[in-house]
Amino acid sequence: MFGTLVDWRTGVAREAQLILQPHRIAIDWIAFADAWRDEYQPAMEEIRSGRLPYVKLDVVHRRMLQKIIPNFGLEKIPEIALDQLTLAWHCLDAWKDVPVGLARLRKRFRIAPVSNGNIALMSDLARRNDIHWDAILGADIARTFKPNAAVYLSAAEAFGLEPGECMMCAAHSADLKAAAASGLRTAFIARPQERPGVSESLPSVPVDVDARTTEDLATQLGL
Amino acid sequence: MFGTLVDWRTGVAREAQLILQPHRIAIDWIAFADAWRDEYQPAMEEIRSGRLPYVKLDVVHRRMLQKIIPNFGLEKIPEIALDQLTLAWHCLDAWKDVPVGLARLRKRFRIAPVSNGNIALMSDLARRNDIHWDAILGADIARTFKPNAAVYLSAAEAFGLEPGECMMCAAHSADLKAAAASGLRTAFIARPQERPGVSESLPSVPVDVDARTTEDLATQLGL
Repeated sequence: MFGTLVDWRTGVAREAQLILQPHRIAIDWIAFADAWRDEYQPAMEEIRSGRLPYVKLDVVHRRMLQKIIPNFGLEKIPEIALDQLTLAWHCLDAWKDVPVGLARLRKRFRIAPVSNGNIALMSDLARRNDIHWDAILGADIARTFKPNAAVYLSAAEAFGLEPGECMMCAAHSADLKAAAASGLRTAFIARPQERPGVSESLPSVPVDVDARTTEDLATQLGL
Repeated sequence: MFGTLVDWRTGVAREAQLILQPHRIAIDWIAFADAWRDEYQPAMEEIRSGRLPYVKLDVVHRRMLQKIIPNFGLEKIPEIALDQLTLAWHCLDAWKDVPVGLARLRKRFRIAPVSNGNIALMSDLARRNDIHWDAILGADIARTFKPNAAVYLSAAEAFGLEPGECMMCAAHSADLKAAAASGLRTAFIARPQERPGVSESLPSVPVDVDARTTEDLATQLGL
């Protein structure tokens, strides 16, 4: 979802500016979004490893935000504004191919997010971007985070499918590698604009389909 | 879902006839549907009470079918046909007000099934009947069955809402009574045609809204 379907970087930067500028904060908003996202893997790892119990991504995003407060001089921002800021992740726009690409894929396939995002977060992003999921699967169903195998396997199981009947689609090779290890098929969707210079333009692992966009994926799958 | 949104009785009767008639079975198809459904509460209770572990409703439906095989002379039906028959519950038609009524409700509210049916079952019924859920909640999320409180509370929690911000809508007073006990608001939707002579035309418990159809519910909620 994040990066593959929605542009978290400019969306979080925009929402942060909207919420923090009235508090007389003037920072590099894109750098702020990047710094917040950079806390993602360490925060996930606390839970994936079992050191902390599962909590939904909204809660993890709030913890991640707490860590970067000193770096951006946000110590005096009221708690309520920080809680509101955490919901920035619910207000992200999809890449422009997504509504049409997913609608084409849904003609033949059941489609569901298998994201680390929680159900409320996924349903808000779907509403905003006119996406019609068949179900919302992922971390909130598995009660742990990707790339733990339980997340991919619980998603297949929820649809009553074998892993090999499912295809994990993502812009991130690590995600696809873990899905493939659980027996799912994989499709790479290139999002070089997710974080220019850092994001992958090509997968670094073998994939079943290597697509440029969701529309290209639909075409390659014969739709 | 079953009874409130979809007509399980004539749907299961139709699917059973389609599958069993080629095996030279001639029975009262409606009586068969009723007998199958009558095994529902006893089968649920085994799991709600903790005597058996949680399994999805597809599996429970198969167990319930097994119990009525002798009553309808189905002993010689091959296992594969009985497995296929179990999927009859995925092929049910909604009452005619449902697609429009739910679309109206979705303009202002997040909507989700909070059913004892599993995710694959709910997503198949949604596809067949052109329903756009925001998420699929209910038993498969809570890992137990209604009317256990965990099912209602896990649904509210998945959307990040307090129970009092949610409204359980059903054609069955027992379901609404349990939801109200967990703090949810309630709406009765009358489905006297679910099982004529047996189904409730009016709720037997206090409810926040007493509606004739999903369209009437939308109207009463100001939509």
